[in-house]
Amino acid sequence: MLDKAAILEQLRGVLDPEIGISIVDLNMVRDIGINEDGIVQVKIALTVQHCPMAKTLQADVEKAVGKLDGVKSVNVETTAMSKKELEELRVKLTARGTNSQISQSGQNTSTAGPGINKLGKRGIRNIIAIVSGKGGVGKSFVTSMLATELRRKGYEVGVLDADLTGPSIAKVFGLSGKPYKAPNGLIVPAKSKTGIKVMSINLVLDDPTMPVIWRGPIVNSVIRQLYWDVDWGDVHYLLVDLPPGTSDSPLTVFQSLPVDGVIVVSSPQDLAAMIVAKAVNMAKKMEAPIMGLVENMSYFQCPGCGEKVEIFGQSNGSRLAAQLDIPYLGGVPLDPEIARLSDQGRIEEYSSPVFENITAELRQKAVRQVEQLTQGLPIAWTVEPQHK
Amino acid sequence: MLDKAAILEQLRGVLDPEIGISIVDLNMVRDIGINEDGIVQVKIALTVQHCPMAKTLQADVEKAVGKLDGVKSVNVETTAMSKKELEELRVKLTARGTNSQISQSGQNTSTAGPGINKLGKRGIRNIIAIVSGKGGVGKSFVTSMLATELRRKGYEVGVLDADLTGPSIAKVFGLSGKPYKAPNGLIVPAKSKTGIKVMSINLVLDDPTMPVIWRGPIVNSVIRQLYWDVDWGDVHYLLVDLPPGTSDSPLTVFQSLPVDGVIVVSSPQDLAAMIVAKAVNMAKKMEAPIMGLVENMSYFQCPGCGEKVEIFGQSNGSRLAAQLDIPYLGGVPLDPEIARLSDQGRIEEYSSPVFENITAELRQKAVRQVEQLTQGLPIAWTVEPQHK
Repeated sequence: MLDKAAILEQLRGVLDPEIGISIVDLNMVRDIGINEDGIVQVKIALTVQHCPMAKTLQADVEKAVGKLDGVKSVNVETTAMSKKELEELRVKLTARGTNSQISQSGQNTSTAGPGINKLGKRGIRNIIAIVSGKGGVGKSFVTSMLATELRRKGYEVGVLDADLTGPSIAKVFGLSGKPYKAPNGLIVPAKSKTGIKVMSINLVLDDPTMPVIWRGPIVNSVIRQLYWDVDWGDVHYLLVDLPPGTSDSPLTVFQSLPVDGVIVVSSPQDLAAMIVAKAVNMAKKMEAPIMGLVENMSYFQCPGCGEKVEIFGQSNGSRLAAQLDIPYLGGVPLDPEIARLSDQGRIEEYSSPVFENITAELRQKAVRQVEQLTQGLPIAWTVEPQHK
Repeated sequence: MLDKAAILEQLRGVLDPEIGISIVDLNMVRDIGINEDGIVQVKIALTVQHCPMAKTLQADVEKAVGKLDGVKSVNVETTAMSKKELEELRVKLTARGTNSQISQSGQNTSTAGPGINKLGKRGIRNIIAIVSGKGGVGKSFVTSMLATELRRKGYEVGVLDADLTGPSIAKVFGLSGKPYKAPNGLIVPAKSKTGIKVMSINLVLDDPTMPVIWRGPIVNSVIRQLYWDVDWGDVHYLLVDLPPGTSDSPLTVFQSLPVDGVIVVSSPQDLAAMIVAKAVNMAKKMEAPIMGLVENMSYFQCPGCGEKVEIFGQSNGSRLAAQLDIPYLGGVPLDPEIARLSDQGRIEEYSSPVFENITAELRQKAVRQVEQLTQGLPIAWTVEPQHK
């Protein structure tokens, strides 16, 4: 049935072209009218009176609402936000941590740094970056397990593999098909067996063993494309698997993507701890909220005699987390099953209680965030899966 | 006693300012005369008649020879190489794989790429890069063990940690003191307990947990500085520990340093193999000679019951090496002792037969290379340690 709620839900998919956030979340939808003939009136408040993007926005609204059954035509009326409304919006966006700010003149004055603007979120509710600084501690494993566990709970989940030179994500999910472009011009991500949306440079390459020998500027623009040119659709969580280091790729992710939370992965070695600390200090400098630390490869239990061996040194995840002043989320033991399932592209068959705990924490944080965010905004974000 | 050999040995330390290679190796020393009063005559053939660097070179020769006991004064006479001699030199340099070429006009026309010139070697005999593409497979472990083993055999060894964002080398050798500048303006590298010269960004940072959040261009220039601004002195081997990936840092090392050989490190995971293949393909594209593959973490032997467990999957180093068409150098098992000694800065106490084999191969290769190189040149490089 055609009602205001259905139209509002449809409008949620329309983004402010400059800010890249839904016009509903931006409180730009002011009035919705429906008459008996199926003619819909939508009133939109723009961030600035003669916004050059107004025509684009009007067309987007007409197109989105026009898709609904029973709609004959759509009339879009525009108005401008008051200074007070702009100020309120600015505060909300700042609280949201997107760094996208609307100045008095309505310009998008991102503070992300010279030449790099923070991108919007479209239909993505939460962006979680998985970092470590040190390579080989299991970022991709933690990323894929979190995605798997969230998916098990019914959430819509996407995984963006931001590691261009050492991409693992497509392989652990057993994906190899080439992504294609949808009629809307966006790239359709690959889908895992359980329905996780995946985008990785290795899905684009003709041969997965070919190196991408690119210097920073190209790496940066490709990462932005893998995020922004992809049709993630409505997802509750987009997990971003970062490469090791604190140079171009991680920097671009922190500067370009509106990251809501960071999960840090370490291993018991002191050596790893030192480098993980670098990544944590980077995330702090970039003002990205750190959700906590997962220790991978905590110990190994011999399948022969059951002896627990601390191959990479004494487990110290909780101590390291305390030193870094971030929450400790738990430790995952070494298990030959992980390498086996990863190599076979069947990581979704693995489970570990640690990831159940982490997903519960992610959910709580998301709910709190949305409660703060939606005060005064017309509709609430769905942070829970819709069991249809 | 003052003789020609002593003077020639001293001249070996004098580099052509443009090419960065010893004037002795470049066959530029044409005559040496000593009279009874301790007055030395040295005749040098320049690559081009009115070489603008001639004055620098003259001064360097006077300074070097003047250091010898019994030398009262040094007269340097210069001449120019013939076209034929220049052509011979060009062939020798190309065979040497330094990419430094002398054109007919005497200009240094490096083919390393736009804006990046290949640096010289000064007193360094062999530069070996340790790469993997994938993080956490043990590049730093292999680098430090090779250094340790070569040092045990009596060689002079340097280690350059080219991993700026995840530097491990200083820690595994237990080094933390800040390097200082020598009167010649070069940075004096740190020295490990057994005398290995070490340079790493972590020796320069005030706090080893601070990240270097640098984009590519800065990373590149710092890597070049860590190599060229450091007083490596006369070393038989400089081992370069590369960061994971195939982007800026590895690219800069391959384009800037005259790499003589590449050792590739993998782990048994298929996932690692895929990414290691990327690094090998990169090295091949950069025309760097690949010496072979070391498989790390091949298996784990339980200290409790002795069972061998293939934690990261079935060992496949020899198969992977065959696929990549490179030699297989051997596999190293997982051993908790490695993490313990690395964390305590005592990696030099560890030993494994694999590294003894690799150092033997390195030596053979170096001898072969020098034999090719020195045909027709006045003196042979010392590729063997001098047991004084």
